Amino acid sequence: MRKRLSFDTFLEGILAGDRVVLSQAITLVESALDSDQELSARLVQDLLPHTGKSIRIGITGVPGVGKSTFIEAFGSWLLNQGKRVAVLAVDPSSQLTKGSILGDKTRMEKLSSDKRAFIRPSPSGSTLGGVSGKTRESILLCEAAGFDVILVETVGVGQSETAVKNMVDFFLLLMLSGAGDELQGIKKGIMEMADLLVINKADGENLDAAKKAKANYQNALHLFPEAEKSWYPQVLLASSLTGFGLEQIWENLQEYEQRMKASGFWDSNRASQRLTWLEDQVQYLLGQVFLKNSQVRQKLETEKPKAKSGELNPRILAQQLIDLFLSKS
Amino acid sequence: MRKRLSFDTFLEGILAGDRVVLSQAITLVESALDSDQELSARLVQDLLPHTGKSIRIGITGVPGVGKSTFIEAFGSWLLNQGKRVAVLAVDPSSQLTKGSILGDKTRMEKLSSDKRAFIRPSPSGSTLGGVSGKTRESILLCEAAGFDVILVETVGVGQSETAVKNMVDFFLLLMLSGAGDELQGIKKGIMEMADLLVINKADGENLDAAKKAKANYQNALHLFPEAEKSWYPQVLLASSLTGFGLEQIWENLQEYEQRMKASGFWDSNRASQRLTWLEDQVQYLLGQVFLKNSQVRQKLETEKPKAKSGELNPRILAQQLIDLFLSKS
Repeated sequence: MRKRLSFDTFLEGILAGDRVVLSQAITLVESALDSDQELSARLVQDLLPHTGKSIRIGITGVPGVGKSTFIEAFGSWLLNQGKRVAVLAVDPSSQLTKGSILGDKTRMEKLSSDKRAFIRPSPSGSTLGGVSGKTRESILLCEAAGFDVILVETVGVGQSETAVKNMVDFFLLLMLSGAGDELQGIKKGIMEMADLLVINKADGENLDAAKKAKANYQNALHLFPEAEKSWYPQVLLASSLTGFGLEQIWENLQEYEQRMKASGFWDSNRASQRLTWLEDQVQYLLGQVFLKNSQVRQKLETEKPKAKSGELNPRILAQQLIDLFLSKS
Repeated sequence: MRKRLSFDTFLEGILAGDRVVLSQAITLVESALDSDQELSARLVQDLLPHTGKSIRIGITGVPGVGKSTFIEAFGSWLLNQGKRVAVLAVDPSSQLTKGSILGDKTRMEKLSSDKRAFIRPSPSGSTLGGVSGKTRESILLCEAAGFDVILVETVGVGQSETAVKNMVDFFLLLMLSGAGDELQGIKKGIMEMADLLVINKADGENLDAAKKAKANYQNALHLFPEAEKSWYPQVLLASSLTGFGLEQIWENLQEYEQRMKASGFWDSNRASQRLTWLEDQVQYLLGQVFLKNSQVRQKLETEKPKAKSGELNPRILAQQLIDLFLSKS
């Protein structure tokens, strides 16, 4: 076990915007050690008054859509506007696929070498509950360190989008034109979450196809009702290569921020996200304790196949497991 | 408390297809009394070898789409084909709205007066976990009683669709034409679950609009990828008034059944649904026990507002709640 910084060193370093200390604090948040967990929970607690001032943006899209280059381009553009940008990732599968997103920082050379930016790959962890809890705390740490735009990247293929949607203010979905819509693999449920659709790689020979795709997606979005917050998601074009469209995206984001703050949705959304976080954590921790129980594990191993095959009523097994758990814990 | 039938009377009555006994058995499943719960769990267990032979069909659509009249028409049509039809409902809100779906059996006069049919409103219960567990067991009881088509109705406005999707073989989404798409309030995520879209009320002056809507929705569906089971959802027209389209719907259902049984998806889907059921039950029961704990409740009442406002790290509160729970239970 490496030597940890002291609580005060962490606190002061983060508030001073020290990226090295911030990085070590996130490592602390991601650590499975009880002592680290206890320390990081207190650290986040003491930093809470210094959080909340950033705009938190979720970015998703299937592999190949160009998320890394988009984030590199958009992040650099934001730096030039005087923003401080942090990039985090949520990918519960990343410990298996080893760096499917943000694992290779060199993919974002410009951004990772700039002192006004901070880039962090997805924490490892097999369950979404674990990974997303860590990312929520990392967002807060980045805010306390003075970052005012937090980009949270996730892959558009699983349930992690719902988790990210629940920790950001704005959800941006990257799409491609010309790849054949059926190949994009984006689920409708994810499209529904989006506050903005961006057709990426809208440059050169792709531009016409991108314009057509824009019209198609705008139509598809109109098939469905607006969300309760009275926001009609736009479809915009962008090119990470030429920088085309980045300014318009930022304008859309700012309009969203203004309108949602004026309507009160911004704050009420963050408040309800905190309650979701609490519920997620309770459920996650309860599940962890439950599955660590050796009697529960033993029983599950022998009886689960029977429930799966239809020999055993799952309710009976569930009740037996709970009874075992409560008698032993 | 009413006197219950004996275990053997339940068992024999259900296997003999007695609708009165079936109805009482479902009441038993829905009861919150520990003794009833224990009895019904055993009953379902002993009936398991006699279950699984029906086709389980989920039917959803927003209020006003004509679910009741469609089920009445489609159910009656099935009876005429020699099928025995059971209709169940899943609506976690129904104890509040008092009979938003199936609450008023008289809406299905023909079906409810026919001895080959069985109709049951949604069980009461405030949580989806509770309601859906009960419905899963009711499906099995209906199968043991010889019903070979089970229609599970739900409202297309909440999370209950996911629950129903997880307990049926086939998911049918009812839509309307001409109401203005944005008024239909169907979420994209629900459309994605559908194995078949049916444009209802395709008769008289509505027919042309229904045909147009069919083309629109077919296009919208094609924007999205096929599911892992290699099934392209169709969009069909139907009229509960004239019976138009009902036969085609049944043919689509039968084609689905044949192909999914041939590919093995039918069985593997049911097996994975049983595991989901087990997980749902564990989570539901664990949550019930957790929230019944008086120390947990007290702590939640005083501390939850602090987590919501951002004063208190939700992870700290979650851990404190778990610690309280484990020390007392």
